[in-house]
Amino acid sequence: MDQAELKKLAAAEALKYVESGMVLGLGSGSTAAEFVKQLGAKLSGGELKDIVGVPTSVGTADLAKSLNIPLSTLDEHEKLDLAVDGADEVDPSLNMIKGLGKALLREKMTEVRVGKFVVIVDESKLVNKLGEKCPLPVEIVQFAHGATVKRLNTLPECRAELWLDESGEPARTDNNNFLAKCFFDKGIDDPSAVAKTLDGMPGVVEHGLFLGMATKVIVAAEAGIKIMAK
Amino acid sequence: MDQAELKKLAAAEALKYVESGMVLGLGSGSTAAEFVKQLGAKLSGGELKDIVGVPTSVGTADLAKSLNIPLSTLDEHEKLDLAVDGADEVDPSLNMIKGLGKALLREKMTEVRVGKFVVIVDESKLVNKLGEKCPLPVEIVQFAHGATVKRLNTLPECRAELWLDESGEPARTDNNNFLAKCFFDKGIDDPSAVAKTLDGMPGVVEHGLFLGMATKVIVAAEAGIKIMAK
Repeated sequence: MDQAELKKLAAAEALKYVESGMVLGLGSGSTAAEFVKQLGAKLSGGELKDIVGVPTSVGTADLAKSLNIPLSTLDEHEKLDLAVDGADEVDPSLNMIKGLGKALLREKMTEVRVGKFVVIVDESKLVNKLGEKCPLPVEIVQFAHGATVKRLNTLPECRAELWLDESGEPARTDNNNFLAKCFFDKGIDDPSAVAKTLDGMPGVVEHGLFLGMATKVIVAAEAGIKIMAK
Repeated sequence: MDQAELKKLAAAEALKYVESGMVLGLGSGSTAAEFVKQLGAKLSGGELKDIVGVPTSVGTADLAKSLNIPLSTLDEHEKLDLAVDGADEVDPSLNMIKGLGKALLREKMTEVRVGKFVVIVDESKLVNKLGEKCPLPVEIVQFAHGATVKRLNTLPECRAELWLDESGEPARTDNNNFLAKCFFDKGIDDPSAVAKTLDGMPGVVEHGLFLGMATKVIVAAEAGIKIMAK
């Protein structure tokens, strides 16, 4: 199986947690998109009904609309039953790096408000230490972004840079903020400490460390589905 | 003396800390504006020279430009010698509420980068407990701002509302974010705990608790100038 097939497999497993009548947080990125597509099929096929989706990005909202999934907002639904989303890295404690799809702020705002948070990944996303394989994305305000990136560089063992898109312009989020990528080549020894420092850093809007948030992680591998749970 | 005269008095006292050659953070609001005006006069009169100002708002930048004060940015000056700014409330430990001028994010980004932070207030700004006299302003992202305001309402003893301007529209910062006002009618018992909660709340960009940041507070009163220092 290739990675695309593994993503479909993980998404199908996550659908088992969905029940009619639920308010669902809809994640962003390619794996979450698989889930949204399969959800749309179950709704149009009548296997599920009365689902309301709360999208975590403009892209996901557009996809869900194209599939006729009824949508609402966090303002309308302070508490969600379930969210399903992908992740960029997952460690053995179910802590995660998310945000390489640029949607980390809306994802985190949504996923702190759910009863259950099911994460779907293929096995390539599993790491021993966060930061091992991918940079940590950090959403920062445009004002003085150069100074903020310099300050991010003062994090222990961190090399930070402004995230540029293919055209060489600063990448922008749906919230019109910029992003930095923080590279921890040796991995992040203490994710909680890094999260706390980032939380308190003026100019940082949000960061991609999602700690203690996942209820279950569904891992799709050649050998089948593995479930990691708290 | 009326409040306007007290502000001028405090600003004049703060000017004594300014030396030629300094990189200066320029605060926002009516008291800071007095300082900027007097700084402009000293520069044009030749008493000070080689000053570079780093403004904390578009309004302050406009004022400084009109006075021919040379300006730069945080991106150019990661470390500033001195910042001078007003405050909305100051407690006996020199902790402050700032941001009722809507500039709290840029102020905090600037004022965490200074060698010395001199605060200028008239005596009406002194309180025993922060929150006693004014609400705590919190800068929040536009996305799902209603949900964020609801969450702010869960802070202990806090009543939060979206900050509306005179036309009834959400007030906006220079960064195009919205603002909430958090009312703590009994004052804030534990400002550090509230700051930590706000730092970790997705959707909150920055808040007006400036804790452990002021080096000196210059208080202008009928009876004269009082200096509070750490």
